Amino acid sequence: MFNILGNLLSLTTFGESHGVAYGGIINNFPAGLTVDFDKIQYELDRRKPGQSAIVTQRKESDTVKFLSGIFEGKTTGTPIGFIIENENQKSKDYDHIADSYRPSHADFTYDQKFGIRDYRGGGKSSARETINWVVAGALAKQLLSGIEINAYVSSVGDIFCEKPYQDLDFSKTESNDVRCPDAETAEKMIERIKEIKKEGNTIGGTVTCVIKNVPVGIGEPVFSKLQAELGKAMLNINACKGFEYGSGFCGAKMTGKEHNDAFNPDFTTKSNLSGGIQGGISNGMDIYFRAAFKPVATILRPQDSVDRYGNPVIVEGKGRHDPCVVPRAVPVVESLAAFVLADLFLINKTRNINNF
Amino acid sequence: MFNILGNLLSLTTFGESHGVAYGGIINNFPAGLTVDFDKIQYELDRRKPGQSAIVTQRKESDTVKFLSGIFEGKTTGTPIGFIIENENQKSKDYDHIADSYRPSHADFTYDQKFGIRDYRGGGKSSARETINWVVAGALAKQLLSGIEINAYVSSVGDIFCEKPYQDLDFSKTESNDVRCPDAETAEKMIERIKEIKKEGNTIGGTVTCVIKNVPVGIGEPVFSKLQAELGKAMLNINACKGFEYGSGFCGAKMTGKEHNDAFNPDFTTKSNLSGGIQGGISNGMDIYFRAAFKPVATILRPQDSVDRYGNPVIVEGKGRHDPCVVPRAVPVVESLAAFVLADLFLINKTRNINNF
Amino acid sequence: MFNILGNLLSLTTFGESHGVAYGGIINNFPAGLTVDFDKIQYELDRRKPGQSAIVTQRKESDTVKFLSGIFEGKTTGTPIGFIIENENQKSKDYDHIADSYRPSHADFTYDQKFGIRDYRGGGKSSARETINWVVAGALAKQLLSGIEINAYVSSVGDIFCEKPYQDLDFSKTESNDVRCPDAETAEKMIERIKEIKKEGNTIGGTVTCVIKNVPVGIGEPVFSKLQAELGKAMLNINACKGFEYGSGFCGAKMTGKEHNDAFNPDFTTKSNLSGGIQGGISNGMDIYFRAAFKPVATILRPQDSVDRYGNPVIVEGKGRHDPCVVPRAVPVVESLAAFVLADLFLINKTRNINNF
Amino acid sequence: MFNILGNLLSLTTFGESHGVAYGGIINNFPAGLTVDFDKIQYELDRRKPGQSAIVTQRKESDTVKFLSGIFEGKTTGTPIGFIIENENQKSKDYDHIADSYRPSHADFTYDQKFGIRDYRGGGKSSARETINWVVAGALAKQLLSGIEINAYVSSVGDIFCEKPYQDLDFSKTESNDVRCPDAETAEKMIERIKEIKKEGNTIGGTVTCVIKNVPVGIGEPVFSKLQAELGKAMLNINACKGFEYGSGFCGAKMTGKEHNDAFNPDFTTKSNLSGGIQGGISNGMDIYFRAAFKPVATILRPQDSVDRYGNPVIVEGKGRHDPCVVPRAVPVVESLAAFVLADLFLINKTRNINNF
Repeated sequence: MFNILGNLLSLTTFGESHGVAYGGIINNFPAGLTVDFDKIQYELDRRKPGQSAIVTQRKESDTVKFLSGIFEGKTTGTPIGFIIENENQKSKDYDHIADSYRPSHADFTYDQKFGIRDYRGGGKSSARETINWVVAGALAKQLLSGIEINAYVSSVGDIFCEKPYQDLDFSKTESNDVRCPDAETAEKMIERIKEIKKEGNTIGGTVTCVIKNVPVGIGEPVFSKLQAELGKAMLNINACKGFEYGSGFCGAKMTGKEHNDAFNPDFTTKSNLSGGIQGGISNGMDIYFRAAFKPVATILRPQDSVDRYGNPVIVEGKGRHDPCVVPRAVPVVESLAAFVLADLFLINKTRNINNF
Repeated sequence: MFNILGNLLSLTTFGESHGVAYGGIINNFPAGLTVDFDKIQYELDRRKPGQSAIVTQRKESDTVKFLSGIFEGKTTGTPIGFIIENENQKSKDYDHIADSYRPSHADFTYDQKFGIRDYRGGGKSSARETINWVVAGALAKQLLSGIEINAYVSSVGDIFCEKPYQDLDFSKTESNDVRCPDAETAEKMIERIKEIKKEGNTIGGTVTCVIKNVPVGIGEPVFSKLQAELGKAMLNINACKGFEYGSGFCGAKMTGKEHNDAFNPDFTTKSNLSGGIQGGISNGMDIYFRAAFKPVATILRPQDSVDRYGNPVIVEGKGRHDPCVVPRAVPVVESLAAFVLADLFLINKTRNINNF
Repeated sequence: MFNILGNLLSLTTFGESHGVAYGGIINNFPAGLTVDFDKIQYELDRRKPGQSAIVTQRKESDTVKFLSGIFEGKTTGTPIGFIIENENQKSKDYDHIADSYRPSHADFTYDQKFGIRDYRGGGKSSARETINWVVAGALAKQLLSGIEINAYVSSVGDIFCEKPYQDLDFSKTESNDVRCPDAETAEKMIERIKEIKKEGNTIGGTVTCVIKNVPVGIGEPVFSKLQAELGKAMLNINACKGFEYGSGFCGAKMTGKEHNDAFNPDFTTKSNLSGGIQGGISNGMDIYFRAAFKPVATILRPQDSVDRYGNPVIVEGKGRHDPCVVPRAVPVVESLAAFVLADLFLINKTRNINNF
Repeated sequence: MFNILGNLLSLTTFGESHGVAYGGIINNFPAGLTVDFDKIQYELDRRKPGQSAIVTQRKESDTVKFLSGIFEGKTTGTPIGFIIENENQKSKDYDHIADSYRPSHADFTYDQKFGIRDYRGGGKSSARETINWVVAGALAKQLLSGIEINAYVSSVGDIFCEKPYQDLDFSKTESNDVRCPDAETAEKMIERIKEIKKEGNTIGGTVTCVIKNVPVGIGEPVFSKLQAELGKAMLNINACKGFEYGSGFCGAKMTGKEHNDAFNPDFTTKSNLSGGIQGGISNGMDIYFRAAFKPVATILRPQDSVDRYGNPVIVEGKGRHDPCVVPRAVPVVESLAAFVLADLFLINKTRNINNF
């Protein structure tokens, strides 16, 4: 169904950048989980604006309030409602663009589609929506005990983390502001973002996500293949322009002989170009994928544009904006991955009468 | 919901490679469309095995039979049921692998997940499933009058069609076996596939799809962004390893200043790195995306593998297989794109009370 | 989603009275069930036209053909496609009403809604659609081992089976043509239907359904309460005008003191006015409900009506019709109940982390 | 999908009787509607506890706060989030039943299903959930301009409003506390409820709902028939035990000759036993249905019961409870009817290419 993430475990959300609050409802979350609220706040803090010099300086405490579905610290199996209040709206920052269309923003398309548009901070089109996903994902992570989901920044502009993920120590991801576990590369990335920021410009990047210990069998044969559900989730992230898993676009250059993953006697595979998924179903190997993010559209310099009547205007980003979205995208990517996995994990409990 | 393509206009399908038939049900198709059956068969013929020297030689007429929902040549608004009978099953070709797991196939994951597996031609995991999608897409295309959807092979291995799509003449796509509209590149690609085939090997490639004349406003704000629905559909195609739209992975290397698409006074944009979508909603510019396909896993040479008990076995592809999947993927990509668009096009009729 | 029965286990269907075939697709049916095909045909035979003197004389073998999802006699977990071919269409019987609207049929509403209408036997609005549901329900029944679902005719016109269901022997339901397990009442009912038939008239009735051995916990808190899902399914049956469960409409006349079901120490209840459901969730007691069916609209006597232009016409039922729908509704009611239960039974596997 | 009301226009909700707040999210509400907030509060006030001597005395202002989806008084087409804070929780009233199972409540079934239960006021199983539906329904009503939805109390215990709805003046419904537009019957009903209340007992009743001016064509052929969607919604209301429309259970006693609704030349029908629906689709005549409600399970007198360990306990309703649910059910029934109609009304915009 439209505007719902997940099929069995499902998330519906609301909220606009400068509205009263964000929030969501999680349906069909299993009963009996003792919720670790600190872990949820921890994920929100990772996504939070104002956390470092290289992200937007909007100040929000980003505290989630659970309104239902949890009783005496445990999930009850009934819908989990939550809200995150907006605190630091500066809607005035947007008055000057109430009638203008900013380049590569959704101002024009929303206005045309709906005949009305909340211009304050992009309204519904703001990436602040992802805060809802982090709440839901942080809960989903707690369902997936034993499964490790680690995303990190794998490139900023043309600075790439060249090491394969196997050589990275994910415990280092949070040790720097850009969330690249390779310290040396991280430094270069941060440098680059600072330069770009100084210019009032922005820059794109990629996030790689590695999921370990997924049991064999997660994913559905047709239209809900694991990679398809993951890809859909990632492509809903604001600014995401591409998704690839396993060998990805590189795999398209290879031959079958090179690309096939030979089996070991224990059913692991010698290589893992498949990216842990065969026929849409997890095979027990690491799942890994990469998402591409374009540079943030709001740049702090004058740009030629038009207003809703087609008149030329100059727009210039005010407000508080990210020079590069990827550091804050890391927890979002993990959260969506966790939610998608949990959804497919739940249905998998019903797929074989031998489990009954 | 699981295993359903689309949200309002929806497709559910069935069928296995060596079963009796494929088929599907399309729900909520609008009434009153005069169906052009030849166009549907035309698309099926483009996907058909045996159509040229560089595709699998399985012989199937691939004729669709509509069983309901069409009366006196017109859609009635009620569910459209259809089947395509399998004719040329050679299940014997698979007896030798009944207990074996072929590398980079879904044999192992299906067997583990379901505890049972139709080993004949991969059963449900066979790409023959895409035949259903072509039927549904060919019908959807007929709903989208005026909208042009053109996919083509943009690379085979490391042979790329270097010309931007704007310089290609899509009326040439069908003029060669590989479906690349640039004759010179097509020739090289065909050559390459023939070599690879001779070696009993396979090769990957990419398909680019360009959609023109989509009205402004198609796509939904959250979780059903146009690119997310397109991406999900493409990533369900067997062998698809990646999806990017607009600037895609290249966009992740750019700065905001370079990447932003400036508006013209008529709301078209001077550049189109957005790929015709802003905030998940079409902006009237060309929509274009690219899907990556890995090399087919079945190679006609002995490979070391294991059986379901973990014993070493040698598997060797018999049967009839594609050395390269992309030429036949072209109509599949177009079909899915058409279906996704039609679904979002229908809901868009309901999104603004000014239309009522 | 529209036109889909079930949420997790789901059924989509197609077919028209005088089209080529009926059929459907069942998604997310668990793998590993050894299918008893005879039981499925048995249910189809119970629903079949021509089975006795008091039902329509249309001759159909009503044989189901499974096209996928079952391999070597076992469900594979992949979509189950099936068709039932129409054999005995006499479309000519309907030529005379191509432009006429029969009273209390769906001719007018379909024509207005869709601008087109398959007039042959009512097209999509025909109760022959229920054949699909019987196939799906007969499969669902096999999932629900130990659960007994018994429907029977509890009234025809003003002839009621006065005995409470507890005093009935359901093994007798099939021993007479009307499917009332009380032989004496059955005889009266049959007599009544024969009279009515002789007059070219039709008559209504009710079906009661009793479900035993449902485990505690089936049903979801909000919007998917067990009774709501059952009611929705029943109200989709052609001619169904009402649904009540437990004390039903009688319960609305009672006081809380009378109506409350006191607990025994083993959590069974002394009375069962709740009908086995509390708060939308099964409590382990018998579930029972009743569905009301209006008299069939087609009567074999001239009626004043209008054509699609509003001109007066006389319509007179030709074709072969049921004088009373309830005997054939019995297996339909059971089938839908089984399907709804199985859907809720599957999701229930995912509702508590203690099961994981 | 589970726990979602509606298919296109959809409502997801959360909240427990003694939790922080109730609330919900409405998806796919069309943009451009100028919201009349007073009308929404008016409906909430009709449902509100404490509004008269014959309903529960819990004191709640029941004020809804919209958190998104409305900008400058107009719907924006994006998700509408709302909450209603709980103010007058007296959770202490329930401490004594934390381990007890009240007869005919959902205490036992929730506890068994989820292994945990919010015992305060019934938690999720409380009818306070219906407050969410009234918000959503009040908005939906505003979409359905011209359509009149009038519910009223048609019986309390064995006191029936004998007049057919055609003879009632719905402008009188709000003129008395019980919401029966026939003053004389209303008085008797109120008297009856007061007696019952004095005894610490409760009583059941029925609500009839009449919907006028529905255009022809609302409702979908299979599985989303108008009556099925209405019935499902009503059967989700706490305490609802039955649903019938048009001739309902009485129709099951009639013959076709009596029951058929003859057409007038303008396609209205002379009688309306169909209840405004033929083949699941509205025919332009009045839609009317009736819902049965059992007596409230909480009675203010000692009852024998058991605790969760099977030990005998005496439970006695404290807290504040309705002696009869039907007066407050009236706005709930209207709200759900409005929401269901709006959902089917929206999809109907997409069903015919002649509208495109």
